[in-house]
Amino acid sequence: MGRVTERRKVVRIRDGVVSTRPDTLVAEEPLEIRLNGKPLAITMRTPGDDFALAAGFLVSEGVLAERDDLQNIVYCAGATADGSNTYNVVDVRTAPGVAIPDLTLERNVYTTSSCGLCGKASLDAVRTTTRWPVADAPRLRIEPGLLAVLPDRLRAAQRVFDRTGGLHGAALFSEDGELLDVREDVGRHNAVDKLVGRALQNGDLPLSRAILLVSARASFELAQKAVMAGIPVLAAVSAPSSLAVDLAAETGLTLVGFLRGSSMNVYAGEDRIALSAAATRS
Amino acid sequence: MGRVTERRKVVRIRDGVVSTRPDTLVAEEPLEIRLNGKPLAITMRTPGDDFALAAGFLVSEGVLAERDDLQNIVYCAGATADGSNTYNVVDVRTAPGVAIPDLTLERNVYTTSSCGLCGKASLDAVRTTTRWPVADAPRLRIEPGLLAVLPDRLRAAQRVFDRTGGLHGAALFSEDGELLDVREDVGRHNAVDKLVGRALQNGDLPLSRAILLVSARASFELAQKAVMAGIPVLAAVSAPSSLAVDLAAETGLTLVGFLRGSSMNVYAGEDRIALSAAATRS
Repeated sequence: MGRVTERRKVVRIRDGVVSTRPDTLVAEEPLEIRLNGKPLAITMRTPGDDFALAAGFLVSEGVLAERDDLQNIVYCAGATADGSNTYNVVDVRTAPGVAIPDLTLERNVYTTSSCGLCGKASLDAVRTTTRWPVADAPRLRIEPGLLAVLPDRLRAAQRVFDRTGGLHGAALFSEDGELLDVREDVGRHNAVDKLVGRALQNGDLPLSRAILLVSARASFELAQKAVMAGIPVLAAVSAPSSLAVDLAAETGLTLVGFLRGSSMNVYAGEDRIALSAAATRS
Repeated sequence: MGRVTERRKVVRIRDGVVSTRPDTLVAEEPLEIRLNGKPLAITMRTPGDDFALAAGFLVSEGVLAERDDLQNIVYCAGATADGSNTYNVVDVRTAPGVAIPDLTLERNVYTTSSCGLCGKASLDAVRTTTRWPVADAPRLRIEPGLLAVLPDRLRAAQRVFDRTGGLHGAALFSEDGELLDVREDVGRHNAVDKLVGRALQNGDLPLSRAILLVSARASFELAQKAVMAGIPVLAAVSAPSSLAVDLAAETGLTLVGFLRGSSMNVYAGEDRIALSAAATRS
């Protein structure tokens, strides 16, 4: 634990000059997430916030939706021959009465759909599974100028990135642009899971007044995580995928991409962005 | 197929000026990979090169190692109620006699290891599984100046990135810096799987004289894919993780990170990098 970074020897080459020195790397270790004792998934993650990561992952999977769904989370000791604890296996116990969905390989993507495996079925699965439809969230109205300052705030809060250059960052902001929480991880999906899991543990789901900012691209998976946590606005520094845009349009999520300086693209849910003040040209 | 990009309407905001226009997005769709008829994995990928993606994925998983291991790959029609083909389900048939390893959740990471789930067990699993140990590869001696020009060559070859800004790129180069193949995908692991799978289909494994360049960070997973394909040199434009460096050191893989201009860091396997010409300072 606390193994967020590790030191390794590196051979540096700078304009033909070779030197050897220690370098700080972002730590990566496997984490096995068990649900009520049964192995469910393994993710490669940066150690730390493991309970939040596991809880957030289970929000995305539709198992947990509020604090009372969670009984407790523990590190599993005794997974090794000598009984020591690697702190790489966590078991999440759900509260009595929490229904466990069928978490087979196919669950997320087609289940009973008639379309076989396709993007449309993936969208439907998320839309019908979430307990916190963003369409039901309070009406937000975000100024573009407020969004524009968020990437700098995320970057300023990314402490490990500065040392390693190797981490994805994700942050939650209030509708006023106040930084609520920030997480870093080798995997951007893990960083978002850690944010959402911590919010669940704090009783803060749904995050119906929050803005989620990610330092990278917006994939389907990240849009899914926003929707499952009831987050109404997802902003990304880089490009979204087609399926992320489709999921946003289908669920009412506001999706902003290429958020750089005073420029941004709004791909869906533009009703939450205050466009009226700006000159409109179509 | 050929759905590498899709068009969506986007609201652009540039310095307060709002306009609506069509935008080109990178396509993302789920792909289910079946092995001998049995569902094995689902990955969100950019459509195209799906057979290569599936084959490369199975090289990483230790199922396939050379062309003769593969019988054929087909799209599964009839996965839908109306019998239409979504081109999102592929079935890989192995040749008679190919042993199928136990592809359970735990396979990649601990199996019979005595250390429980941890990085060390992950390294051991890759090292003992690969059919193409990079330590057995021919001796390469790469000039830093040759590595320095590769990122520009990758970028020049990334045709879809220019239109969408949303793709990871991966390329194979010869030891002389010649571009052998390039693939793009929303997932960097998919881009590498597509390269490796195509090489398997062409009878080119092990890629024991090749350099693999990725446009992003070097995670454990990418280092694993290089090792499983017998690739001796992995170069990344950005940072490696601790476990990627450990895997490289354990298997003899040369791992270069932060490859930018004439600067780079060599994290492991520096014997393949021609350092002698440069002044050495330690």
